[in-house]
Amino acid sequence: MAPRDGFQSVGPVIPTREKIRIIAALYDAGLRRIEVTSFVGPAVPQLADAVEVLAAARALAGLDAQVLVPNQRHAERALAAGARHLAFFLSVSERHNENNVRRSVAESVAEYARVAAIRPAGVKLRLNLATAFDCPFEGRVAESATLELLGRLLEVESDAEVALCDTTGRVTPGHVAALFTAAMQQYPRVAAWAFHAHDTYGMGAANALAAWQAGVSVFDASAGGLGGCPFAPGATGNVATEDLVWMFDGMGVASGVELGRLAAVGREIARLPGAQTGGRVREALARSAEIGSGQHMGGLKK
Amino acid sequence: MAPRDGFQSVGPVIPTREKIRIIAALYDAGLRRIEVTSFVGPAVPQLADAVEVLAAARALAGLDAQVLVPNQRHAERALAAGARHLAFFLSVSERHNENNVRRSVAESVAEYARVAAIRPAGVKLRLNLATAFDCPFEGRVAESATLELLGRLLEVESDAEVALCDTTGRVTPGHVAALFTAAMQQYPRVAAWAFHAHDTYGMGAANALAAWQAGVSVFDASAGGLGGCPFAPGATGNVATEDLVWMFDGMGVASGVELGRLAAVGREIARLPGAQTGGRVREALARSAEIGSGQHMGGLKK
Repeated sequence: MAPRDGFQSVGPVIPTREKIRIIAALYDAGLRRIEVTSFVGPAVPQLADAVEVLAAARALAGLDAQVLVPNQRHAERALAAGARHLAFFLSVSERHNENNVRRSVAESVAEYARVAAIRPAGVKLRLNLATAFDCPFEGRVAESATLELLGRLLEVESDAEVALCDTTGRVTPGHVAALFTAAMQQYPRVAAWAFHAHDTYGMGAANALAAWQAGVSVFDASAGGLGGCPFAPGATGNVATEDLVWMFDGMGVASGVELGRLAAVGREIARLPGAQTGGRVREALARSAEIGSGQHMGGLKK
Repeated sequence: MAPRDGFQSVGPVIPTREKIRIIAALYDAGLRRIEVTSFVGPAVPQLADAVEVLAAARALAGLDAQVLVPNQRHAERALAAGARHLAFFLSVSERHNENNVRRSVAESVAEYARVAAIRPAGVKLRLNLATAFDCPFEGRVAESATLELLGRLLEVESDAEVALCDTTGRVTPGHVAALFTAAMQQYPRVAAWAFHAHDTYGMGAANALAAWQAGVSVFDASAGGLGGCPFAPGATGNVATEDLVWMFDGMGVASGVELGRLAAVGREIARLPGAQTGGRVREALARSAEIGSGQHMGGLKK
C-alpha cells in the first residue's frame, strides 16, 4: 500500500520517477501485488501521475498492479490506462462515506454496480469495506451493519476479493477474528478475504495474526509503515510490510518477499521528505547488522 | 517493568523521588503488581537506590512490589529491605548467562536453590527464563533445552511462577504458542505462567496475544515502552503496558488498569532524559483527545 495509501499521505509531491523507482524496488524485493496508485480527482494532487505510474508498473513482469478507484468515471480512466486490477471502496458508516466520497452508502453501492458493469473480462476486482469495524465519527460499527452491506454488494458482484478495513486502527484482535469468522460463515462463496490494518494503536501485527488465524491470507501493509495524514501530525499508516513479513516468515508462512531487501526499501521510504512512518523491523534489522553478534549488553537482560 | 527493566536502561540517573513518584502514579492508574527495582551490584548504578524505592513501594496498600535479584547475596539484601516477592533470573543459553551474570547455567541453578532455600514463608518467588526462545549470541534456542532446564529448576522449587522471556524480541507468535503449549503440557503443576516480551521487532502485542491464547495470563510490559540499552541506540524495551492494556481491554480481558491514566504516566516517562520509548497507544490517545470527533480526514481513507 505504500505507493497509494502511503504516498497520498505525504505532503510534498514525490517526483514520478522516484515513485516508479520505489515500486520497482518493492518488486525486486519480491512483492508481486502492489496497489501502485489511485485514479482520483484533483483533491489528491500527490496521485495526479496515476497514468504514468501505472504504465511503469505494468512493465514489471508478473506484477499484479492494483489501482484504487472511487467511481465509474475514474474506473474508466484506469481501464483506459491499462489497469487490470481495480479496487473500489466505500464505507459501512454513512458519515465516513459522506466525508470520504461525498455520497450516501446507497449511492456508493450503485456506483459499485456501475464499476462492476464496465469491468472487462479478465480484469480483477477488489472491494474494500472501510469502517468495517470502527468509524472515526460513529465509533464501533455493528457487525450486522457490515454483514448486511456486504450482502448487498455481493448481490451486485459475487467474484470480487473482499477486504475488511480497520480504518481507524482502533480495532483489537477479538473483534477482527469475530467479524471475519461471521462474514466467512455467512458468505462462504467469497473468492478471497483480505485485511487492511492501520497501526495507529500498535495493533497491526496482532490484528493480522487474528485475521490469519480466522482464515485470511491477503494482508494490506505499507513498506516503511508509510501513511498517516498531512493534516493530523502523528497519525499513522498501514502496518509496516516488513513487520508482517517478519511475523509470517517466523511462522513459516511464505510471502515470497526477501526481507532484507524490503527493509532497505522501507528505510529509503522513511527518508522521503514529509514521510510519516511506522514499524520496527527495518531499524531492528539495520541495528542487528551493525552490532553483529550482539555485544551490546547493558544491565540485566531477561 | 518500567521501574526496573525500563529505568536500568536509562543513562542519566533518575532521582529516587522521581522513581517513587512514577511508581505511585502507575499504582494510581490501577497497576497492582510492579517490578519496582532490582537488588544488584554497582554495575547498575541506576538501581543503587533499591532499598529506598522498595520501602516507598511497600507503603502502597495492596501493591505486589516485585524485585529482581541475581543471587543469594542480593536476595538477602532484598529480604532485609522488606521484599515480599523475589524474582530470580537465569538464561537458557550458556553464552547469554555467562554474559549477563558471569556464571554457567549449572551455577545459576545452584544459586536458584540457595535463593529458594532462604525464602521465608509467605514470600513469593518468580523464576525468569531469559533466552527461553532466542539468544542474541546463539540464535534460536531449542525447545528441548528450555524444557529440560525448566524441569531441573522445578525440582528445586515447585511453586514459583515461571516467566518465559523473549529476550531479543525476535520471536514470532507461532514459536510463543508452541513453547508455552509444550511447557504447560510437560509441567502442568506450575503455579502460573508469565510472558516477558520485548518489542524490538514490533511483535510485542502479537506475541502476547499468542501467549494469551495458549493460556498465559501474566504479562510483563513497560509503561511508555521504556527500555533498551544505553550502549545500543535504538534498542527497545518491553512492549508498552498501555498497548497491552488497550488490546486486552478491547478483547474484554480485564486488567484493572485505567488506560487514560496509564497513558498519561507513559507520556511522563517518555519525557525522562535519556529515555528510549516504544508503543503507540499513549500518543494515539493524546491525538484522539486533541482532534475530538476526528475531523482530520485527508485523502482517501480505507
